[in-house]
Amino acid sequence: MQKLNVAVLGATGAVGQRFIQLLEHHPWFQVAEVIGSDRSAGKTYGEAVHWILDDNPPSNVLDLKVKPLDAPLDSLLVFSALPKEAADPREVELAAAGHVVCTNASTNRMIDDVPLLLPEVNAEHIGLVEVQRRNRGWTSGALVANSNCTTMPIVMALAPLRHLGIRKILVVSAQATSGAGYPGVASLDILDNIIPYVSGDEHKMETETLKMLGQFDRDQITWLESRVSATCNRVPVVDGHLVNISIELDEILSIEAIIDLWQSYRGIDPIPMLPSAPAQPLIYLTQPDRPQTRRDRNTGNGMATSIGRLRPCPLFTYKFAALSHNTIRGAAGCSILNAELLAVQGYLDQFQPLMFDRSESL
Amino acid sequence: MQKLNVAVLGATGAVGQRFIQLLEHHPWFQVAEVIGSDRSAGKTYGEAVHWILDDNPPSNVLDLKVKPLDAPLDSLLVFSALPKEAADPREVELAAAGHVVCTNASTNRMIDDVPLLLPEVNAEHIGLVEVQRRNRGWTSGALVANSNCTTMPIVMALAPLRHLGIRKILVVSAQATSGAGYPGVASLDILDNIIPYVSGDEHKMETETLKMLGQFDRDQITWLESRVSATCNRVPVVDGHLVNISIELDEILSIEAIIDLWQSYRGIDPIPMLPSAPAQPLIYLTQPDRPQTRRDRNTGNGMATSIGRLRPCPLFTYKFAALSHNTIRGAAGCSILNAELLAVQGYLDQFQPLMFDRSESL
Amino acid sequence: MQKLNVAVLGATGAVGQRFIQLLEHHPWFQVAEVIGSDRSAGKTYGEAVHWILDDNPPSNVLDLKVKPLDAPLDSLLVFSALPKEAADPREVELAAAGHVVCTNASTNRMIDDVPLLLPEVNAEHIGLVEVQRRNRGWTSGALVANSNCTTMPIVMALAPLRHLGIRKILVVSAQATSGAGYPGVASLDILDNIIPYVSGDEHKMETETLKMLGQFDRDQITWLESRVSATCNRVPVVDGHLVNISIELDEILSIEAIIDLWQSYRGIDPIPMLPSAPAQPLIYLTQPDRPQTRRDRNTGNGMATSIGRLRPCPLFTYKFAALSHNTIRGAAGCSILNAELLAVQGYLDQFQPLMFDRSESL
Amino acid sequence: MQKLNVAVLGATGAVGQRFIQLLEHHPWFQVAEVIGSDRSAGKTYGEAVHWILDDNPPSNVLDLKVKPLDAPLDSLLVFSALPKEAADPREVELAAAGHVVCTNASTNRMIDDVPLLLPEVNAEHIGLVEVQRRNRGWTSGALVANSNCTTMPIVMALAPLRHLGIRKILVVSAQATSGAGYPGVASLDILDNIIPYVSGDEHKMETETLKMLGQFDRDQITWLESRVSATCNRVPVVDGHLVNISIELDEILSIEAIIDLWQSYRGIDPIPMLPSAPAQPLIYLTQPDRPQTRRDRNTGNGMATSIGRLRPCPLFTYKFAALSHNTIRGAAGCSILNAELLAVQGYLDQFQPLMFDRSESL
Repeated sequence: MQKLNVAVLGATGAVGQRFIQLLEHHPWFQVAEVIGSDRSAGKTYGEAVHWILDDNPPSNVLDLKVKPLDAPLDSLLVFSALPKEAADPREVELAAAGHVVCTNASTNRMIDDVPLLLPEVNAEHIGLVEVQRRNRGWTSGALVANSNCTTMPIVMALAPLRHLGIRKILVVSAQATSGAGYPGVASLDILDNIIPYVSGDEHKMETETLKMLGQFDRDQITWLESRVSATCNRVPVVDGHLVNISIELDEILSIEAIIDLWQSYRGIDPIPMLPSAPAQPLIYLTQPDRPQTRRDRNTGNGMATSIGRLRPCPLFTYKFAALSHNTIRGAAGCSILNAELLAVQGYLDQFQPLMFDRSESL
Repeated sequence: MQKLNVAVLGATGAVGQRFIQLLEHHPWFQVAEVIGSDRSAGKTYGEAVHWILDDNPPSNVLDLKVKPLDAPLDSLLVFSALPKEAADPREVELAAAGHVVCTNASTNRMIDDVPLLLPEVNAEHIGLVEVQRRNRGWTSGALVANSNCTTMPIVMALAPLRHLGIRKILVVSAQATSGAGYPGVASLDILDNIIPYVSGDEHKMETETLKMLGQFDRDQITWLESRVSATCNRVPVVDGHLVNISIELDEILSIEAIIDLWQSYRGIDPIPMLPSAPAQPLIYLTQPDRPQTRRDRNTGNGMATSIGRLRPCPLFTYKFAALSHNTIRGAAGCSILNAELLAVQGYLDQFQPLMFDRSESL
Repeated sequence: MQKLNVAVLGATGAVGQRFIQLLEHHPWFQVAEVIGSDRSAGKTYGEAVHWILDDNPPSNVLDLKVKPLDAPLDSLLVFSALPKEAADPREVELAAAGHVVCTNASTNRMIDDVPLLLPEVNAEHIGLVEVQRRNRGWTSGALVANSNCTTMPIVMALAPLRHLGIRKILVVSAQATSGAGYPGVASLDILDNIIPYVSGDEHKMETETLKMLGQFDRDQITWLESRVSATCNRVPVVDGHLVNISIELDEILSIEAIIDLWQSYRGIDPIPMLPSAPAQPLIYLTQPDRPQTRRDRNTGNGMATSIGRLRPCPLFTYKFAALSHNTIRGAAGCSILNAELLAVQGYLDQFQPLMFDRSESL
Repeated sequence: MQKLNVAVLGATGAVGQRFIQLLEHHPWFQVAEVIGSDRSAGKTYGEAVHWILDDNPPSNVLDLKVKPLDAPLDSLLVFSALPKEAADPREVELAAAGHVVCTNASTNRMIDDVPLLLPEVNAEHIGLVEVQRRNRGWTSGALVANSNCTTMPIVMALAPLRHLGIRKILVVSAQATSGAGYPGVASLDILDNIIPYVSGDEHKMETETLKMLGQFDRDQITWLESRVSATCNRVPVVDGHLVNISIELDEILSIEAIIDLWQSYRGIDPIPMLPSAPAQPLIYLTQPDRPQTRRDRNTGNGMATSIGRLRPCPLFTYKFAALSHNTIRGAAGCSILNAELLAVQGYLDQFQPLMFDRSESL
């Protein structure tokens, strides 16, 4: 199978580097174009990048020339790790020009015809791409967003419980500093410190959660009818966003039944067979003190969400803790999974990925 | 004025060291007896202690001989930093023998006739000492407890709001490792990590809060009628417990009015004049990202509680963040303040402290 | 190929867990026996272990019953993660009883007939096993040690330079807390702190280095003629020991030539083909600020040593920084590599491992 | 006594804030002018500053209007916390205009006629001010520098040993992130990490040390005849620079004699009576594992240097560890102490400070 060339916008930044890292050995996609800021444009990726992830940048991209943000792109599929300001209006321009843009930027997330896609949770929202193309007169182009990195563990954990009627959701986060990009959080602000504030994130969690858990019918998303209260904290950890969640349910199942809903959750076909899909998206840990940020963030190659401590809440129905890796599941990894879904659903023009049955190979 | 000799139980442990440190220059009390484990007994304090606070142990206690736990004590006033197991039954024995015991141990906190005293909040609970003496046939002895260190910022912040009818309290903590004593939390468990669990603390916060905010009348405490949901996290900071709190109120005041209640709160006379009382017990910070653990834990010599981020909660009335130093306000410092209140109220036999008006001297 | 059953002594401790983790998918060895303290004996491994590494213990050992330290063992090959006190005399007893014991304990490291084996560096020291067997009347048994975890990056980095005449070695370490085992370093001792002291390690580094870099001839090791000054610091990182080294050389090569010696170093055949051998044992990083503990400790699956910043030293010939993962290359991983060498050299009785050429497969 | 008005250049930065904090209650000086970047100029200090130290900015400066860098100043005494680029040529201009400038910038440190002043160590270097004035035709103006923050603990510890003939100095540092200013070190670069590199500092330590320990005679400084090898590491601590030092001495005293030189060191009169001078500049700690960064950095209000672990070095004469607070003793505090010395020596025009005997008042 010929791999599909892809472009990465904002390729030298923190999330951009995760894209580069996760795509290094991807079975379907290969990075052919890297796009950076004016400061980087014209240099090779190896010259331009200040690599902040572990080890060194993969050798397959070192010699790619960094293109400026306004350069026309050859790749049909474009991943965007642009900051909000740079994303607008470039992402829409690229989609209008026929590119399929999978973006992490918050700019267009809450636009009605932009899907906030999370394959295991709301694969059917992909239908908004048709709406989007119709609304905007696009043909091959599309704009598909993924959520804020802290919204991710909430939505993942609540997806299997939707049919129980989730009336109230109260969440308090403990967010890693990598969520703020690079250089992001100054060490003097976070060593031996907790900051009970992350600019803008509470509002995102309170709205994105409802859109993502909503239903797609008659060409639009009907948001989940629920109320969310979100409180954010920045904590001195490198990666991994942990949330403490209280929920009120209409229909009350036993603790065992809830855990079983999580453990058995897989998402609809063909999602479990996508290359970046974790074998088990939701993992319930039975130890009393898990999930823990450092010990559980890399589970399922950083694509699984770990849950623990399900217990009654004196004020709601239940409370529990959930954890996702914020730059993998919560950012670049989710975009790639979204693109894989787009590929198998035929949204990437002629590109036909070779599916394999992961359950067999494991 | 002759200072009153005091004894410190568990003097070589983490909280015991805070007692020693805070009492070094105390205007009324001086450490005359230090009590330790069998391992320490017989050595001088300087030999026995593995000092874990900053700098070195104060010179005034280095040569005191550590007494065993069962030794008879000369000091009327006894501060206890004993672990729960050692506290029972020794603290009650000492009170029965005529000592006034101010304790941090959780053993007797929820016993009906033991006050869970916090001078600025429930000074009148001191009346339980009379009940206690009557119930148990004690004369000069008394047992006065202070709360769990994470309960402290909750109760401090809610005290000025009691008259508004606090119906629901949801709290999620970020607790420093010093809250677990020494050696306590292993570094491998907490570096680059968040643990969403602190054994036993959630139950304490859900019950102690209601007792402390309750009313003393007809010889007993009527607990606050409210429901509490507490979730605990251990975080990689040295000192300072930060809590995110959501509350539902019967009577709704404006944000400005609530802040004013906090800023003007002082506790009843003569508490503001006690030597360890902070000039302002509750300090509202107007910056969007405060209180922060490292930057605000030492405010008011570690005896003030910092509050910030008051805003509407989509599920309750309001939410906000609060922070107290866990081993000063939340442990040793509070015990000392309790003892100061006992002193001025005449519970320490003939001892008559010399009061001074702090508002003048400052 | 039938895998060889192996036993792990001290299997529930910090280094014991690394053995279990690294052996999970080992192509030659499989864990068949786990040995623990009296507290653990009789339970299954799953019940007994408090897993402190990432994720969860591998499922293949969960149901193994933990044997007491004095139990007779069935496995020919025994890995020891025992603490020093427990290792003596059990390890010698097991070797005397015919077991090949690969140990991390310091107990017997400096005994003349015990090899301090590091395959890439001193594979010929394995000849001491013959001496040992002759001296002690052992037949199939053997006792093979590996070094202190902080000695490892020193010896790895200096091995390719031995022929230049290393006259003086001055090393200052920055050691991870996992080097002290579990619970090991208390969080209150290391958060926001540096401790310029690690009990016992300086002496180990000053002696083990010379033995390991020594020559085996006429049935004994002639230590390297050099002088070592070691200074140890404990630092707030989870894994990875970084050392700053100054060396004085008899023969002075250029910086480029030294780097080339490192980059091209592989160890003698068949070491590069052993399953746990890293593709490149020594990796020189050209960035000015590398190696860094978090970013480089896992290079080569934690078995490579990263080096950087080679430059002239105003007081010696050169100085540079080196880094190894302390519980993989510096402990369990090295023991396993030692056992692999013993296997291919025929020291494991009839066991014949299936060699494969890693250079082909990669 | 009328306090002397002073100006602070770079008042909103990390070191500028330390100046503001340390000067809040200073008995001789009061902040009357604050100078900031173009971004800050025109705002009040309260509006312009993003306070990064503990607690909040002192109220006495909140309403001062921030002046631009090129504004003429009224204050005779000027403290500079400017970054290197901004310091040049503004500091020299101000000195030429008659101001006494005490600076932390590295720009002019190694100029022959600029004293690198450290009162306890080289008070006589103040004589360079006369040379400077003569050379440059200045009258009341002067430019007095203090050293790099990592040079400080080296020079403090070596000062009492100068007469023994210090032939070689090898130092390896562990430097706090506050040494890099704000925002300075990104949290992603330092959480769970050690960086064996601090740009520029090794050269500063290798040269400044020799100038500071040099002798002033015949209008110039004769540098200490010694060789220095410095290696720098950035470590995840907030404040405090710890150094491991090996030294070779001509004359070898016993360990006890060396410790006695440190413990009894005071600097020449009237330095021990200056308001910012610590009661004991050098404190030798006898515990085997001290000094420690967090526990000892604030000793003597951050102005004392703590030393420990003096022992023979296998390659030199002795080795030991030393620690200074990098933004107090190593930056703002030292500048203020320098200014106090200038004041009592009559370099501040008519200003006559009221001396008091600290030994009496303590």
